[in-house]
Amino acid sequence: DFDQQENYFSRETLDRMSAKRTDKVWLDAKQSHPDTIYLLFSNLSPMVSSPQDGNDGGETKLCQFKYEVVKDLLQKPATVLVFLGVEKRKNCSSSFSSSQTKGGVQDPAAWFAICTDEDEAELLKRCKQKNCSFPKMPNRDLLKLTEEEAGVVAQARSVLGWHSRYSFCPTCGSSTKLEEGGYKRSCLNLDCRSLRGVHNTCYPRVDPVVIMLVIHPDGNQCLLGRKKVFPSGMFSCLAGFIEPGETIEDAVRREVEEESGVKIGPVQYVSCQPWPMPSNLMIGCLALAISTDIRVDENEIEEARWFTRQQVIDSLFRGESPAFTAPPRQTIAHQLIKHWIGMNSNL
Amino acid sequence: DFDQQENYFSRETLDRMSAKRTDKVWLDAKQSHPDTIYLLFSNLSPMVSSPQDGNDGGETKLCQFKYEVVKDLLQKPATVLVFLGVEKRKNCSSSFSSSQTKGGVQDPAAWFAICTDEDEAELLKRCKQKNCSFPKMPNRDLLKLTEEEAGVVAQARSVLGWHSRYSFCPTCGSSTKLEEGGYKRSCLNLDCRSLRGVHNTCYPRVDPVVIMLVIHPDGNQCLLGRKKVFPSGMFSCLAGFIEPGETIEDAVRREVEEESGVKIGPVQYVSCQPWPMPSNLMIGCLALAISTDIRVDENEIEEARWFTRQQVIDSLFRGESPAFTAPPRQTIAHQLIKHWIGMNSNL
Ligand SMILES: Nc1ncnc2c1ncn2[C@@H]1O[C@H](COP(=O)(O)O)[C@@H](O)[C@H]1O
Ligand SMILES: Nc1ncnc2c1ncn2[C@@H]1O[C@H](COP(=O)(O)O)[C@@H](O)[C@H]1O
Ligand SMILES: [Mg+2]
Ligand SMILES: [Mg+2]
Ligand SMILES: [Mg+2]
Ligand SMILES: [Mg+2]
Ligand SMILES: [Mg+2]
Ligand SMILES: [Mg+2]
Ligand SMILES: [Zn+2]
Ligand SMILES: [Zn+2]
Repeated sequence: DFDQQENYFSRETLDRMSAKRTDKVWLDAKQSHPDTIYLLFSNLSPMVSSPQDGNDGGETKLCQFKYEVVKDLLQKPATVLVFLGVEKRKNCSSSFSSSQTKGGVQDPAAWFAICTDEDEAELLKRCKQKNCSFPKMPNRDLLKLTEEEAGVVAQARSVLGWHSRYSFCPTCGSSTKLEEGGYKRSCLNLDCRSLRGVHNTCYPRVDPVVIMLVIHPDGNQCLLGRKKVFPSGMFSCLAGFIEPGETIEDAVRREVEEESGVKIGPVQYVSCQPWPMPSNLMIGCLALAISTDIRVDENEIEEARWFTRQQVIDSLFRGESPAFTAPPRQTIAHQLIKHWIGMNSNL
Repeated sequence: DFDQQENYFSRETLDRMSAKRTDKVWLDAKQSHPDTIYLLFSNLSPMVSSPQDGNDGGETKLCQFKYEVVKDLLQKPATVLVFLGVEKRKNCSSSFSSSQTKGGVQDPAAWFAICTDEDEAELLKRCKQKNCSFPKMPNRDLLKLTEEEAGVVAQARSVLGWHSRYSFCPTCGSSTKLEEGGYKRSCLNLDCRSLRGVHNTCYPRVDPVVIMLVIHPDGNQCLLGRKKVFPSGMFSCLAGFIEPGETIEDAVRREVEEESGVKIGPVQYVSCQPWPMPSNLMIGCLALAISTDIRVDENEIEEARWFTRQQVIDSLFRGESPAFTAPPRQTIAHQLIKHWIGMNSNL
């Protein structure tokens, strides 16, 4: 079927307008335009304003800046600037307020991300919001944004993370320069092979990862595992990087067998999720087991176990003393598990 | 449904045994084992023996070498060695003949790929087959292998291509050393950030690409385009790199609209294909159009057109004077088109 699950980090509120990345004049005009929105990153974390203490219901919000407030940062050599896109006309939600038309047709506002290594305390003073910070635990703190802001952060953090790790040319070791609105790095060594032809060394890296819910041959249990670093009691889906020359389906079979010893037959794609720590594409699948004995790879997994449908329902919907803690709802692992308990047991 | 299309380059004849990559003793023993098979690459092309002239029906075959014939190459500093895996026990097909058991249980043979910059003419002398060469046009020549050998080449060429472009540390520009059977490169600068924690800079790169057959709202036409570099008359599916922070489905919508101006609604994953030029993962989808006007991006596409189901059938099955030439059967584009004409027009 064509129904699509929407996962956290995947909403696209901006039109990336990739054709404009090579249009220097257009980009420059957008940079200094009064409607343009800047997000400020330090150490790959965006500046956010958090709900005040005792007001736990509030949402963490991205701090948005105008050109005048950040233009000095744009001059610093260590600053990285990435063009994120322009607001889509139809989505004028409350958190994307800048594209109001003033009595006529107006260009939608552009968004940029800035990553700077200036002092964080000084940067925080630029914001008029209360309770601002650069959160330090992305795997936890970046899950508190709205769906819309999470989508923008997924794009911005993935590209900025690439710049922070790939500032030298992997082909010759020389320095590189940033181009095309932050979507390209070109080698400064004019003899470098990377300048002849088109090569992936110049473009942002996206790592495809398979993440799968393994279903017992009886159709009524699923396999979940825990890494040592998980909070106590938490179990989640198995996952692993797709290797060179491998399909999604074969990566699912290989990773499940490596990590749990369980053999897999058919594999079915469900949905995917960008995960910007640092720049993964989580490809979510259901995997039908054709064996049931568990032998975990102790380097990666502390424990793996079959859980019944009822145990899973109790955990997701907080029954009394559930058998395990599920991963947070913002993860595709959570959504895969939920998808499975919503399915008929006869696959 | 769980039925899976098998695409060219995707057959996994070897068990990658990734846990053995860190087992130096085991790897060393396999390297010098008389059953071990080596494939020789020069310039990212494998040595193959081609059918003799006038014998067009024959298949191009990989030249296989024993340790004794290549051990001198293993000593050269410029040689790159990659462990591909061991033969799966159940698949003892004719082209994978070395795992014969001699009157007892025997370890399955290991396979390695060697990439060397030694003189090609000298390298060719090492082979006893006739008509050997290192083919120069991978996009054409690597499509002539058997399904099994194509799968091995997909893995080997993707990893070797990564070594050839990523021999310097992108984080600090220093040289790197090869580790873990060819699946890791570590920075030689002991102060480098890439050595603290786990980072993708040290692992092979796989680029996820979406490739999609766009279906007309009437269900009976599909959209195909041609790049300037295509052979005359050939039309194929649109395709593009997945960007950071983007889902498969949104990448399909963005690339189709960028390249053809056509707007897409629902997207459905069909199957995927590793494409080792250099290391792409082609993620094949059907995309339902919700608009029909075509406006091509002339930087990338020369022409895009709606073709009827009948025109597509005539082209795939060589009717008289077909409206266009389809891409070769080894491409996932061909398989997506074939999948669609096998489908009911009521999606
Ligand atoms: N692109 C990558 N980024 C990070 N780690 C990788 C990558 N590719 C392979 N690895 C290795 O895969 C391990 C995680 O295992 P898995 O996620 O199960 O594939 C890491 O500890 C690395 O050793
Ligand atoms: N990983 C990558 N490898 C090669 N080209 C890339 C990559 N990412 C983005 N590009 C750019 O994408 C263009 C091809 O367009 P498309 O395949 O439609 O996305 C290339 O000419 C490059 O400018
Ligand atoms: Mg693993
Ligand atoms: Mg894993
Ligand atoms: Mg792995
Ligand atoms: Mg494109
Ligand atoms: Mg394209
Ligand atoms: Mg593109
Ligand atoms: Zn270079
Ligand atoms: Zn380094």
